[in-house]
Amino acid sequence: MASTDLRLPALRAAYREGRATPRALIAVLRKRAARLNPDYKLFIHLLSDEEIEPYFAALDARDIDSLPLYGVPFAIKDNIDLAGIPTTAACPAFAYTPVESATLVAQLVALGAVPIGKTNLDQFATGLNGTRSPYGKCRNSVLDAYPSGGSSAGSSLAVALGVASFALGTDTAGSGRVPAALNNLVGMKGTKGLLSTAGVVPACRTLDCVTYFTATASEASELLALTARHDPADAYSRANPQWNDATAFGTVKRFRFGVPRQLEFAGCEESPALFTQACAALEAIGGQSVQIDFTPFTDAARLLYEGPWVAERYSVAGALMESQPDAVLPVIRDVLAKAPGATAVDAFHAQYKLQALKHRCDAALANLDCVLTPSIPRPVTLAELERDPIGPNSLLGHYTNFMNLLDYAAVAAPAGFMRNGLPWGVTLFGRAFTDQYLLSVADALHRKLAVPLIGGAQQDTDAPARAARHDRMKLVVCGAHLDGLALNAQLKARGARIVAATKSAPRYRLYALAGGAVQRPGMMRDEANGAAIAVEVWEMPSAEFGSFLAGIPAPLALGQVELADGSWQTGFVCEAYGLDGAVDITEYGGWREWLRRA
Amino acid sequence: MASTDLRLPALRAAYREGRATPRALIAVLRKRAARLNPDYKLFIHLLSDEEIEPYFAALDARDIDSLPLYGVPFAIKDNIDLAGIPTTAACPAFAYTPVESATLVAQLVALGAVPIGKTNLDQFATGLNGTRSPYGKCRNSVLDAYPSGGSSAGSSLAVALGVASFALGTDTAGSGRVPAALNNLVGMKGTKGLLSTAGVVPACRTLDCVTYFTATASEASELLALTARHDPADAYSRANPQWNDATAFGTVKRFRFGVPRQLEFAGCEESPALFTQACAALEAIGGQSVQIDFTPFTDAARLLYEGPWVAERYSVAGALMESQPDAVLPVIRDVLAKAPGATAVDAFHAQYKLQALKHRCDAALANLDCVLTPSIPRPVTLAELERDPIGPNSLLGHYTNFMNLLDYAAVAAPAGFMRNGLPWGVTLFGRAFTDQYLLSVADALHRKLAVPLIGGAQQDTDAPARAARHDRMKLVVCGAHLDGLALNAQLKARGARIVAATKSAPRYRLYALAGGAVQRPGMMRDEANGAAIAVEVWEMPSAEFGSFLAGIPAPLALGQVELADGSWQTGFVCEAYGLDGAVDITEYGGWREWLRRA
Repeated sequence: MASTDLRLPALRAAYREGRATPRALIAVLRKRAARLNPDYKLFIHLLSDEEIEPYFAALDARDIDSLPLYGVPFAIKDNIDLAGIPTTAACPAFAYTPVESATLVAQLVALGAVPIGKTNLDQFATGLNGTRSPYGKCRNSVLDAYPSGGSSAGSSLAVALGVASFALGTDTAGSGRVPAALNNLVGMKGTKGLLSTAGVVPACRTLDCVTYFTATASEASELLALTARHDPADAYSRANPQWNDATAFGTVKRFRFGVPRQLEFAGCEESPALFTQACAALEAIGGQSVQIDFTPFTDAARLLYEGPWVAERYSVAGALMESQPDAVLPVIRDVLAKAPGATAVDAFHAQYKLQALKHRCDAALANLDCVLTPSIPRPVTLAELERDPIGPNSLLGHYTNFMNLLDYAAVAAPAGFMRNGLPWGVTLFGRAFTDQYLLSVADALHRKLAVPLIGGAQQDTDAPARAARHDRMKLVVCGAHLDGLALNAQLKARGARIVAATKSAPRYRLYALAGGAVQRPGMMRDEANGAAIAVEVWEMPSAEFGSFLAGIPAPLALGQVELADGSWQTGFVCEAYGLDGAVDITEYGGWREWLRRA
Repeated sequence: MASTDLRLPALRAAYREGRATPRALIAVLRKRAARLNPDYKLFIHLLSDEEIEPYFAALDARDIDSLPLYGVPFAIKDNIDLAGIPTTAACPAFAYTPVESATLVAQLVALGAVPIGKTNLDQFATGLNGTRSPYGKCRNSVLDAYPSGGSSAGSSLAVALGVASFALGTDTAGSGRVPAALNNLVGMKGTKGLLSTAGVVPACRTLDCVTYFTATASEASELLALTARHDPADAYSRANPQWNDATAFGTVKRFRFGVPRQLEFAGCEESPALFTQACAALEAIGGQSVQIDFTPFTDAARLLYEGPWVAERYSVAGALMESQPDAVLPVIRDVLAKAPGATAVDAFHAQYKLQALKHRCDAALANLDCVLTPSIPRPVTLAELERDPIGPNSLLGHYTNFMNLLDYAAVAAPAGFMRNGLPWGVTLFGRAFTDQYLLSVADALHRKLAVPLIGGAQQDTDAPARAARHDRMKLVVCGAHLDGLALNAQLKARGARIVAATKSAPRYRLYALAGGAVQRPGMMRDEANGAAIAVEVWEMPSAEFGSFLAGIPAPLALGQVELADGSWQTGFVCEAYGLDGAVDITEYGGWREWLRRA
């Protein structure tokens, strides 16, 4: 096979058209991986012929169309279990061989994906640079003088160097986003609990997430939609509300994104311009930027390593460190050293402090659809890390460390290149369970910036970006719920805000209905003899629509209303039988005008 | 004023009809309180004439109908701030005088309520019996040989002895429910974060709730609806979803309630029969009982005092205890003693254990509307507590300690009397943000049992019980969403379950609509010439209706559908214009039959 485009649609087409088979294609990839490994140290374990054969055999009996991930090669960070293969967490003395695969790995295999190997990482996933491993330092996929980023170092390289379609990472402090930024990848750190962590070596168990590395956001969206399932085996698993599904239902249009008032580039000359460019691209696709105070976010970030959460890491590696100090890398020992001194009182006090910061951060996000930040302040070099293994590593976490503490979803996306060719990226983040929405914005941004993909392929910039539902929904009102009228408080009590005062498409008639405690109109679609009716568009949390709907008396209902701009939005409609005794007030042009004049 | 009925509706009527004024009524109550206090030790501080006058003065300028709680006397547990009055937490050495009232107290005062005093409690709210106070032991309102229950001891007595309409307690481990059970009161322990805890001395800050003691559930419902507001001053404050508002919209009908398979009565001969009676009453008002494994609940309960949460209590009283050991009661010192030894690692391990238990408990609750338990295994006597201040106290928390750890809402309700006249009670609990629903069930149960109220008044058993919305909602489907049909997966992905296969009222016509990717019917109401259409009723989380609605294409909508039993439920309706090209298939009686035969 000539093509090395491993993106899901390309791979699917190659298999379907008979240009490739999983066995043949993956043989080539495994050879490439073996050839690259001495230089890049990306794999701790590449599956042998015997080890990989059962995965191929399972596909033999199946049709490509029966398995969404038929023959898709993927790499697994070596703190995630693959049945029968050692899990090392980059610490040979810690290694064990699991009998079963992690839930998520088993899900992917059941969907047809083929694991090719276990990837290198910062030991115990403690680090953001990729050099903290006895299995070798992972250098950058593009420039030798830079690290891959970590801790999911090898997983990012597996995708960036073209040996896997996607890879699994983990992300507690930024491990799934920093390497994405440095290797021109999408790094999807979903909402905590959305992807199962059963069968994953914990870093901080209350914070850990499994992540996807992909070339594009639409692939991450597909993978997330296929695997975001409640897992009874994972106590931290959470059910995914269905507004956060993958249904594409239009293009990203108008949205509000936050930008930190305090931007940290650590003296980098190029990063500010790259970030400005990303902001402009978001605005060009319909975003309105809003400056936000970033202090509570960075204050929360500091808690992760300065606070008692280090005790969670210690509870994984502490016993080994005490019994065999040399089994644990000195830099990891340094990070964990303060953990035994922390008391339960300290732990609770830090949680209070975090809660106070989260309260402020949530308030900042309340009227935003997402926030845009750089993924890292600036790249750091291998030489810098050699001189100081802690400082430059900490710098890389400036925009990532707070994310899981605050329970937000985040997507790292490519956003250009430094002049030396090093990839550079941004992160979009938002409230828990807005993952698919964030991916849709990331996809639109990625296409707008027209950043060349890994391997040099160009994005199809003409194709419309995917769009997904948000945790907020539009609502068209035309009567007693209009701003300031009798039932408007029902909207405000639900946290709704007005988005626009506009008109319907000129295909409706408006009636003053008979009866009811509160006087109400009904809007009836009339294709032949309709008019434009004054309406308001509000935005309300999706979770509040149920109770709102329960309070709407017949003959009114919530359906789809066509607006003047031709879009259809959820809004008030009226059943036909309700017109008994109603008065046609279409000529007034709207309920407010009728109230004023009638 | 002859009547001592201080229930909100009675009081309001007395004021409105001029039979009482706040000044005159509350003067009588304050005298009564002063007379009772030497025996019952219920107040630490009764407001003086000077201290209470400003509250009366503020009412002078106002009309009764402008303030929902005009002139309603209430008592405040003395770990909750009232401006200008010392807050002691039952520890004189800890006392301070706050400049501002707690947010919730300020809310109540702004609504017209009048504080009459600060009530006695188990020191630092650490205890469930009411005897752990240097301000005296609170004995039971009915029987001398028994304690009031605690830690909100004096607050329960203030209501039970008829000196306040309601009282504020706090509840970390059961302090708002145990005294309710022992004094024939409703004890409303709302969802964590629903009532502000700003201005409350913490016990365990991650768990603390403020509670209401009232004579009836409908009063607690009214108070909760008036004061459940997001508080920017409380980092643990949470927004209340509007399904959990107080809108009465029908009577409690069919519901499923869990009952522990493992019931603990600690050898009590009478409690089992009282509990059986309460179960039977719940069944008589439409409940279906389901046995549940109670092990994970009691395992979670044990974590509260055996685990690191004691460190939270220590962080409040620890410094004082170290510097002035004698300032803290010996029994409280014993409870807090082990806190300094607990490490942050211990704290996180206990949180993992709790999360695993919560995962199991949540699964047990998933298909239930609520759970019924006794409020306490059995009453304990003052003599028992004298002999052993720890054991009998712990016994009282058997059915309450797990509640806040698991983030559930709970209501303690009166459920009869022991043969010696001591009140006995049950607790209804359920998922977070089902508070108003639980109150509606508690109200129906209380009326059904016809338990005489405090002061001997009888409930009005004929009046329909209040009913509130649940976090689940019914949905009537008639087409492609029917069980097993093309779009049914949209319901199942949202955690919906089928409740009934039934028919609509005989007032609808069914049409096969033209167009659309999936063939769909439309139900149109036709009063004159309709028929009964086969439908299914499903139940789905209220929070999932928004995204479901967003996926429904015009001309379909969600409105109100009349069922064969005459009830109206949220369900599919169809706009009139959608009938273009549609085929009337009413004669088939339903979509499934039409699919089969057409």
